[in-house]
Amino acid sequence: MGQAGCKGLSQSLLDYKTEKYVIAKNKKVGLLYRLLQVSILTYLVVWVFLVKKGYQDTDTSLQSSIITKVKGVTFTNTSELGERLWDVADYVIPPQGENVFFVVTNLIVTPNQQQKTCAESESIPDALCYRDSDCPPGEPVVAGNGVRTGRCLRVGNMQRGTCEIFAWCPVETKSRPTKPLLGKAEDFTIYIKNFIRFPKFNFSKTNVLDTKDKAFLKSCHFGPENPYCPIFRLGSVVSWTGSNFQEIALQGGVIGIQIEWDCDLDKAPSECNPRYSFSRLDNKFSENSISSGYNFRFAKYYRDGAGVEFRTLMKAYGIRFDVMVNGKAGKFNIIPTIINIGSGVALMGAGAFFCDLVLIYLIKKSHFYRDKKYEEVRSVMLLPLQPGGTFVGAPLIRAPLPGLETLPWLDGNAWCVTAGPLGGPLEGPRKVECSENMLYRAGFCLRAAGRRKGLQRPWAGDLVSRPDSAAICHVTSDKSEASLGLSFSLRERASTYVLGFLDLVVLVGWG
Amino acid sequence: MGQAGCKGLSQSLLDYKTEKYVIAKNKKVGLLYRLLQVSILTYLVVWVFLVKKGYQDTDTSLQSSIITKVKGVTFTNTSELGERLWDVADYVIPPQGENVFFVVTNLIVTPNQQQKTCAESESIPDALCYRDSDCPPGEPVVAGNGVRTGRCLRVGNMQRGTCEIFAWCPVETKSRPTKPLLGKAEDFTIYIKNFIRFPKFNFSKTNVLDTKDKAFLKSCHFGPENPYCPIFRLGSVVSWTGSNFQEIALQGGVIGIQIEWDCDLDKAPSECNPRYSFSRLDNKFSENSISSGYNFRFAKYYRDGAGVEFRTLMKAYGIRFDVMVNGKAGKFNIIPTIINIGSGVALMGAGAFFCDLVLIYLIKKSHFYRDKKYEEVRSVMLLPLQPGGTFVGAPLIRAPLPGLETLPWLDGNAWCVTAGPLGGPLEGPRKVECSENMLYRAGFCLRAAGRRKGLQRPWAGDLVSRPDSAAICHVTSDKSEASLGLSFSLRERASTYVLGFLDLVVLVGWG
Amino acid sequence: MGQAGCKGLSQSLLDYKTEKYVIAKNKKVGLLYRLLQVSILTYLVVWVFLVKKGYQDTDTSLQSSIITKVKGVTFTNTSELGERLWDVADYVIPPQGENVFFVVTNLIVTPNQQQKTCAESESIPDALCYRDSDCPPGEPVVAGNGVRTGRCLRVGNMQRGTCEIFAWCPVETKSRPTKPLLGKAEDFTIYIKNFIRFPKFNFSKTNVLDTKDKAFLKSCHFGPENPYCPIFRLGSVVSWTGSNFQEIALQGGVIGIQIEWDCDLDKAPSECNPRYSFSRLDNKFSENSISSGYNFRFAKYYRDGAGVEFRTLMKAYGIRFDVMVNGKAGKFNIIPTIINIGSGVALMGAGAFFCDLVLIYLIKKSHFYRDKKYEEVRSVMLLPLQPGGTFVGAPLIRAPLPGLETLPWLDGNAWCVTAGPLGGPLEGPRKVECSENMLYRAGFCLRAAGRRKGLQRPWAGDLVSRPDSAAICHVTSDKSEASLGLSFSLRERASTYVLGFLDLVVLVGWG
Repeated sequence: MGQAGCKGLSQSLLDYKTEKYVIAKNKKVGLLYRLLQVSILTYLVVWVFLVKKGYQDTDTSLQSSIITKVKGVTFTNTSELGERLWDVADYVIPPQGENVFFVVTNLIVTPNQQQKTCAESESIPDALCYRDSDCPPGEPVVAGNGVRTGRCLRVGNMQRGTCEIFAWCPVETKSRPTKPLLGKAEDFTIYIKNFIRFPKFNFSKTNVLDTKDKAFLKSCHFGPENPYCPIFRLGSVVSWTGSNFQEIALQGGVIGIQIEWDCDLDKAPSECNPRYSFSRLDNKFSENSISSGYNFRFAKYYRDGAGVEFRTLMKAYGIRFDVMVNGKAGKFNIIPTIINIGSGVALMGAGAFFCDLVLIYLIKKSHFYRDKKYEEVRSVMLLPLQPGGTFVGAPLIRAPLPGLETLPWLDGNAWCVTAGPLGGPLEGPRKVECSENMLYRAGFCLRAAGRRKGLQRPWAGDLVSRPDSAAICHVTSDKSEASLGLSFSLRERASTYVLGFLDLVVLVGWG
Repeated sequence: MGQAGCKGLSQSLLDYKTEKYVIAKNKKVGLLYRLLQVSILTYLVVWVFLVKKGYQDTDTSLQSSIITKVKGVTFTNTSELGERLWDVADYVIPPQGENVFFVVTNLIVTPNQQQKTCAESESIPDALCYRDSDCPPGEPVVAGNGVRTGRCLRVGNMQRGTCEIFAWCPVETKSRPTKPLLGKAEDFTIYIKNFIRFPKFNFSKTNVLDTKDKAFLKSCHFGPENPYCPIFRLGSVVSWTGSNFQEIALQGGVIGIQIEWDCDLDKAPSECNPRYSFSRLDNKFSENSISSGYNFRFAKYYRDGAGVEFRTLMKAYGIRFDVMVNGKAGKFNIIPTIINIGSGVALMGAGAFFCDLVLIYLIKKSHFYRDKKYEEVRSVMLLPLQPGGTFVGAPLIRAPLPGLETLPWLDGNAWCVTAGPLGGPLEGPRKVECSENMLYRAGFCLRAAGRRKGLQRPWAGDLVSRPDSAAICHVTSDKSEASLGLSFSLRERASTYVLGFLDLVVLVGWG
Repeated sequence: MGQAGCKGLSQSLLDYKTEKYVIAKNKKVGLLYRLLQVSILTYLVVWVFLVKKGYQDTDTSLQSSIITKVKGVTFTNTSELGERLWDVADYVIPPQGENVFFVVTNLIVTPNQQQKTCAESESIPDALCYRDSDCPPGEPVVAGNGVRTGRCLRVGNMQRGTCEIFAWCPVETKSRPTKPLLGKAEDFTIYIKNFIRFPKFNFSKTNVLDTKDKAFLKSCHFGPENPYCPIFRLGSVVSWTGSNFQEIALQGGVIGIQIEWDCDLDKAPSECNPRYSFSRLDNKFSENSISSGYNFRFAKYYRDGAGVEFRTLMKAYGIRFDVMVNGKAGKFNIIPTIINIGSGVALMGAGAFFCDLVLIYLIKKSHFYRDKKYEEVRSVMLLPLQPGGTFVGAPLIRAPLPGLETLPWLDGNAWCVTAGPLGGPLEGPRKVECSENMLYRAGFCLRAAGRRKGLQRPWAGDLVSRPDSAAICHVTSDKSEASLGLSFSLRERASTYVLGFLDLVVLVGWG
């Protein structure tokens, strides 16, 4: 690129290129477009900016730590356990106070189990037997409690018995009590301490009132007036999930406690409050389904004086609490703001695209707007002229101009003919005699002709046949390529009418 | 659609339609646009591509597995427990080595609790009593340890006592030691083994050096020179969070250990390294708050020779470690690359939109550019002519052309009049004699007129009143609609000047 | 803004402005653009809409609850433990049935440990000693089991011994068995109950067949024909991860069980099915690495008749199962649909941008299309004329027109000269005699001139020097600014040819 090119480039660098628009004074499409614009603007302002806070940078990767503590004691008096008091160390499993914890509400206790042989429980189908051969020794009972010893134990004169097994004996045989053992657990309280931190904004908060008043946390209860006292009554939590406490205490269940922090850090930190929600997480919808409820077995191991190990097996029913923390913090940031505005503008482009489709395809006058919207340019390839050929009076090569048919008042027979100078290269013009009605431009003889379209009677004949009508092919030569601007004009009644313009690029070559 | 239409469609399918731009040689707006372009490009390249690696497909759903192991023993000698050695099985709860584990650092032990009656602790307000009636039998003490039996126990001659309760007796009465029992836990080590896998890219890695040298993991310590030896001294971890070990050992606390894997899989796998960060997750900001610290109670259950159950209650203070793994892997993918470039280009559209607003509304010459940018086209509705009416010499219906006022040199009085053929349909032209200064086109007689705007003296009179000025309404007929291209030209001093063009669609109908 | 302005505004509000397009009849670029369009459309339809279901609003924050239950018993007979039956309460840690649980498959038991003094294990390097002074009393053995008492214990005549320590004695000395103790755990079954809920759509489902047939869950096994029976054989799970059960049982390991819910809520709820996948989460790739496997130590605490505490230490090897639930639900929503379509259209804009680059820079005829695409407008600053100056015959100020050089048939010497009325303001036209070849417009005398570019022989001389060629500067005056439309036309052979148009804004002032 030369010096001039450089200068031109640096000048054109500061040119602003803006799309050329065609104003279609069509009220229907205009209204449609305005409606779309208003919809997109409304969507942008209301949904993206007000509801979704699109002007904020968000942090959803919160660091959260949960400490839970259950409080409450209850007293039971059963034939099996005798008088017994239950405190936290007894009924909360595991004891660590993490985000998942379990409160025992019902219990099947099988005390003093030892490793020895006894009869398998009758409720296990695989253990039923009629004779010893039904109990292959060494084989475990499917879904049972032990390994068969090879004997079939029948009580009294019964024909059917159960296999003898080597197991923790006696095996668990009792079925679930019909009344929860710890029905009074309803009054226990759960204290949930949640500390969160949004690392991106270095913002942290806790859901507990930051007070030095020791009495506060000992006496308060959670409620609308006390949102920063996260002490919940167990019965209330269950009822908030829509469940019945005595039912869930009997069968067991899983309750989710969601804590949601939706913080707008453009506001004061005190506006960033936790929101609690409670839901039943096992399928309560099928109360009688065999898969409902929650229970598990665990054992406490002891040794007697002789060092023999024995255990107390417990099948515990109860409520498992899953405390889950979600959070989102947002703070104003210029990048998402710009991106969201940008996408909104891009969306308007989509709206314009849709309206364009309507304008140029669907409405009645669509072909008119289509013609206005699209301006046609194309390049034409002309066949090379024979060197040394004469063209004055000789038949010229007629190159049909594919663009001409789009001129509304010419039919497809329009053409433009060109003839190069005799035997010479394109560069350097020569004096060339053009035939009548032809024009000499940049070394070419040019003639254009056409016929009025859509008229039965000839419309003033060929353009070239009348002295007052003519076509100009103005040509700029650039090696083997010439830009050709074709304008049609007509003289009639002493006035000259310019009929139209057509821009073409003619590629000319000499063999 | 006919055969010709099909051919035209298939031809126009390969046309490329490109927006027409107006080059506004306005340096200010040009500079503004270039600045916006550079900003967006910089944003795209630096932020989207270099920082956010927008050319990569990312996988954030990593599969992670954590195995932790604490090592270390310590020896204590207290009046309560006597000489005692603490090893991992004693002080780590739970023992499984999962991602959340707790190291006991302080302990209140209440040994040999049995289910019987005793006096409630004096520190519980609800248990205070003056007489037996203050202790309704069967009612649990609020935030207490047992159920009231109905008696008020007063020591000596004290007026005030505490209710007798049925509970695990004796109740816990001691307060927190002032010095942590396991203060030497500072020297314990934590080994954190983390295995991750990005399922989308089937890439897996571990944070432990893959060596067969058994001595390596026994002797190494984590540090900048040993990033693949994830063995941490407990005291160091605490100090990295900015906390004091002896303080946290006394009160308890929660420490988060974040492991972050930010892997660029376009690089070598060895470049994908874990990054560790340590933070205090309970609210250290309020050291003296009643809600700070971390502790829980648990019990070990025993049976004596007579089979009576007793337990040792422990209130454990300590440090809970939450190991959290985050990860992100990215690998080049063509789809996000294209989408990000596309959004960048769309954003440039938004920049152009902004510059357009400046160009056509804010700058001084905005109305000039507005005229250049927007090319007006519209359709005009003409009132139907009466069938059988004559128009030669008769007053024609003057349809004001709403578009004409935008021609800068005509005032609002410009109009175009049309007249259809006598009594005939639009199709098929007829020989019609048009009156003077009118032109015959496609079956219409057309006349246009206007007055030069902004001049007091008439500007060469009406266009129609001079033989050397004329308007051409070239009309193409398509049923009831005609496209009308109106050009104004003027002959003066033997030259013909084309003054302007206006495109209109005229809808004509006969009643 | 006046009343007229308001009316104009309200009218133009319903105008639809559509981009003007230039149709480039270039088959290559057209084909390229169509290909890009088809690619983007395919991407949009296939990837965004069919694969990614971009027309749906999605919820990925599912609430999930997992309940697990292991079943199976096994019998072992070792010299250490004697005959022993293992049931769930023995080998599942922790017992609660949460999403992470551990099944013991191998065990090193060190029974009857008591707090006393004994020799440290010989496998610990730090405990080796030759004399008592090697064992500083009170110092814990690094990576050992206790605290040194100060004595060096040598067996027989050995020179080397180990320090005596205070610890849980005897210390663990056995090494890992070469055959897994609970090798038959292969036949245990895991029952995984998973309840999920998508809160946004209030849709919940469980992975267990909702039946009242109690026998179903007792007999069924997971398989393609039984997807709603989530009961897995432990050995099968291990083999599905590509591991060998006996190996993993020996060393321990971690297995991840992923449950994926990918729900299309536009379909029936029964189409929303869980998908299970199983993977090994510890680094199986380095079987012999020292860091492979999974084990931990825990203890069972007892008291003997005298109240002395003793414990059984167990080093448990086994399989940890991590059940992980992922989920995504989608439901048709108009907003993401519109946004995705909009981004697709915006992406087409990016495609057009790319094709534009090709069209106007890369192809051979690019400069031609560049000229067609960009229409140049600019404003020109003219120097103020001297008040009272005469311009008839006097040298006029020649303002070079920077835009003229873009007219292809004029060289850079083109100019337009203007002259204001004698001593008067711009408003109000006066009768001014313009010199020859100048035109009077809106109070200005205008003349334009140029020279045909690229031709050695002068092209009909200066435009102004021929009576049949002329330039019209039509001027509208607006205070100190005049819009100037310049058209070049040429009369030749009795025809008038309009050569081109150039729009300029001329700022004129009088000092």
